[in-house]
Parts: sequence; C-alpha cells; structure tokens
Amino acid sequence: MLQPNPYRGKLIVVEGIDGSGKSTQINLLTKWLQSRGRSVYFSEWNSSDLVKSTTRLAKKERMFTPTTFSLLQATDFADRWENRMLPMLKAGVIVMADRYAFTAFARDVARGVDPDWVRNLYSFAPKPDIVFYFRVPLDVAVKRILSSRAKLKFYEAGMDLGLSENKVTSFQLFQQRIIDEYDGMVDEFNLTVIDGTTPVQKMQKQVRQIVKEVLDGWEGLPSPKGLAARERKEKAGKAPLEKVALIETIQGGEK
Amino acid sequence: MLQPNPYRGKLIVVEGIDGSGKSTQINLLTKWLQSRGRSVYFSEWNSSDLVKSTTRLAKKERMFTPTTFSLLQATDFADRWENRMLPMLKAGVIVMADRYAFTAFARDVARGVDPDWVRNLYSFAPKPDIVFYFRVPLDVAVKRILSSRAKLKFYEAGMDLGLSENKVTSFQLFQQRIIDEYDGMVDEFNLTVIDGTTPVQKMQKQVRQIVKEVLDGWEGLPSPKGLAARERKEKAGKAPLEKVALIETIQGGEK
Repeated sequence: MLQPNPYRGKLIVVEGIDGSGKSTQINLLTKWLQSRGRSVYFSEWNSSDLVKSTTRLAKKERMFTPTTFSLLQATDFADRWENRMLPMLKAGVIVMADRYAFTAFARDVARGVDPDWVRNLYSFAPKPDIVFYFRVPLDVAVKRILSSRAKLKFYEAGMDLGLSENKVTSFQLFQQRIIDEYDGMVDEFNLTVIDGTTPVQKMQKQVRQIVKEVLDGWEGLPSPKGLAARERKEKAGKAPLEKVALIETIQGGEK
Repeated sequence: MLQPNPYRGKLIVVEGIDGSGKSTQINLLTKWLQSRGRSVYFSEWNSSDLVKSTTRLAKKERMFTPTTFSLLQATDFADRWENRMLPMLKAGVIVMADRYAFTAFARDVARGVDPDWVRNLYSFAPKPDIVFYFRVPLDVAVKRILSSRAKLKFYEAGMDLGLSENKVTSFQLFQQRIIDEYDGMVDEFNLTVIDGTTPVQKMQKQVRQIVKEVLDGWEGLPSPKGLAARERKEKAGKAPLEKVALIETIQGGEK
C-alpha cells in the first residue's frame, strides 16, 4: 500500500489511542532533536486550515457519515501533506507527525469503513521511516482521558455508531475497536510497539535510542543554530540564504 | 469498479463537458417522467451543504491541489449519496444525477490525479442504470460556454494546471483533456453516447426512447399525482401515508 519514503528528509510518526502518551513523547523527541541541531517540522492530525470550518460545522450539526468523515479527514491530510510535509521532506527536514494515515486506518475502519478503500485513499502518502505505536490497555487510556477532560465529545466517544446510549461506555467500546485495528497493523506496517505504561522519561529514552539508530549516518538539513555554528567553524563566506529562509518558516508548525 | 445498482429505484445520469447540452436534456427528461406519474429525485454535482463553505473559500484563495480538490468533491458526493440519493433509490424513486462519479474520473484525471486512485475513491457508488454521455466537439462546447458566461473562473479554466497564461486557451486545453477521458470511458463503463450537436427536441426524443426501454416493465414508487389517480380508480380505503410523506420531500431537490 504505502511506498517507502523516497525523499531526502525523514518521516517519524507517533500513533496510538488518546491517552497513550504519544503526544508527550513526540514533543520531547522534537525538542531533543532540535537541541541536537536538527531541522524538525511538526504536523498534527486534523489541523489544516482548508477544511476547518466544515469539520467544525459538521461535528456541531452531527452531519457526518463514516464515509464523509473519512473523506474530509483525508482532505485535511492531503492538504497538509502536499503543502507542508512533502516540501519539508524534499528539503531534507525531519517531519514529525502526531498521527498519520494509520489513524484513519484504525478509526475509520472502527467506524465501519472498508479497510482496503481507506488504505487506497492514503496511497499517495509514503511509509514513514519509523512509526511508534504507543500501546496501552484500554482501562489505562480511558482513565487518563476521563480524568483530564471535562466532557467527551460526540464523535470522540463514537456516539455516531450507536454502540451505547452511555457516552463513557460508547467511548470504551469504540476505543477497543481502534486498539484492535492498531494491533492488527503492527505486522502489516511494521509498527514499532512501545509499552505506553512505561514511565515518561524511561519511555523517552527508548524512543530516542530507536530514532538515533535510524538517523545514524544520515545528514539532513541542519537547523539554523547548527548551521550558524558550522558556518563559524568553516569560516565560509557564502551564506546559504535560501536554506536559512526556509528554516525560519519551519519553527511554528502549521497550527 | 462500480457495482450494478442493486436497489429498487433507478439511477439515470448525464455526463459531458460544460456546453454539451446535458443539463437541458436532464431537465426535460425529469419533467417528462414526472408528467408520466413517476417519482423523480434530482441531484446536482457539487451541491451538498456539507463542504460548501470550504469549497468557496478554497476556490477564492486558490488553495486546492488536484488531490485535495478531488477529495473534497468526493466528500460532497458521498454526503449527497448517503443522505439523499441512496435513501431515494431504496424507496424506489428514479434518481436523476447531473454529473456522477464519471465527472471526477474525467476532470480529476485531466488534472493529473491517478485514474485507479479516483476510481477506488467512488467505489461505494453503484453503476447507474443509464449513463448518457453527451459528446460535442471542443469548439462547439467552447463557443456555447464563452457566449453564455461573463467570465471563466480560475479552476473552471484549469488555470491551476499552468497549461497556458491565457484563460481561454487554458480552458480549451483542459476541456480537450476531459473529452479524451470521457471518450476513454465509453467502453469501460458502457456509456450511452448521444451526439450533442443534435437539435434539442430531436435529442430529447432519443433520450426518452432509451429511458422508456430501461423502465419498461419496471414499477417504482409512483408520484403523488399518479398515486392519487390510482387510488381513485381502485377506490381503496387504505392510504399509504408514509409513501405520500416521502414523496413530498422529493419535490425540491437538495439545492
């Protein structure tokens, strides 16, 4: 389905259900890579400006069917992919994605969408260099989510599926379906499984070790800081201006 | 790719480039079928409320890539399909579509999208009972369009493809690509080709003849008028109320 990443940059992805700790880990990893002089671009699921207003309206009015939900999120992804992630990868940047096509493969299929259809939908996106799958037992994730959120949202709880009248029960049943889909993808897409119940710092150590091995010997686009240091070292007169300009746009992310 | 229509209702589609005369023909056909006591539901390409605001914004800001354009129109189609066309077909109504998946197969591929990818995108939609393809030479269609419109729009003229700096030239080149795609689909999807240069009334006669043959012996949901007439005739005491209520919602179409 997904072809190997053919670009100069590296693509690192975190996946897992909400409450699996993946966002904390990718944030720590991003800061660590930047501190080591790497140029990093961060992209978050469902964050494109293109379909924002439609997504908001459709969620509010509960207009989505599983197919339209899936298509609209694919539109969001394609917009971020073609306008942000792809140019960054071509430039040699490390692209870090908090959720990628696998989120659609897990969630949309949990909603009843055909697995082959949704895999084809994302076939324009390459296979990442690493996909970390943060695996946690359902009850751990649910406890984390329920303690940190005021209220579960309608689609988040999978209420559109009619699994239960009770929001928490529906959320649990829906999340279990998503876990089952992720588990089934471990071999299919060679996901790197991380035990999500490990303490944060220890987990980060594991994650860094794996990333280190993947980046070993690879030279990407250096970060502005690293670049400046190297320039001082080399005392080179010719400043690669277009590179510096490019990197400046990377810092904020798209959200 | 597209499976045969398995539903009680009939699905009739018109396709062709702008200026091919298809909209005139489907309008005449719809009125004729209604006058013969048929329940007809009409659906137009890109008319769903779901993605309207996004489409407008993205066109204005020229934010679309071929992939995001394709995905957003598929979202629009899926919304109309699942919420309107499918329930109507299940109820036994004749669904008339001014453009269907074939428009995406023609236009999106003319924009450079992968033919197999876009065919998979619409694989949830069944094959219509009839697809009329109104074929006109490029110059005839272009003359009709340019004489009836104040100004060609950016995406309509295919300006996103960079085929020409000149809007009319770009439009012509883009339309020729679309014609080529339609011509290639005649055998693939068994399209019924109609010569779009035939005079309107004569063309309508041909179209009606073909529809008559397809509907021969078929009993769909009768229209309220036909229903009332039959009820008077049969002097039946039991009124099928839910049918009447359904038909009332059909009259307006979704636009």
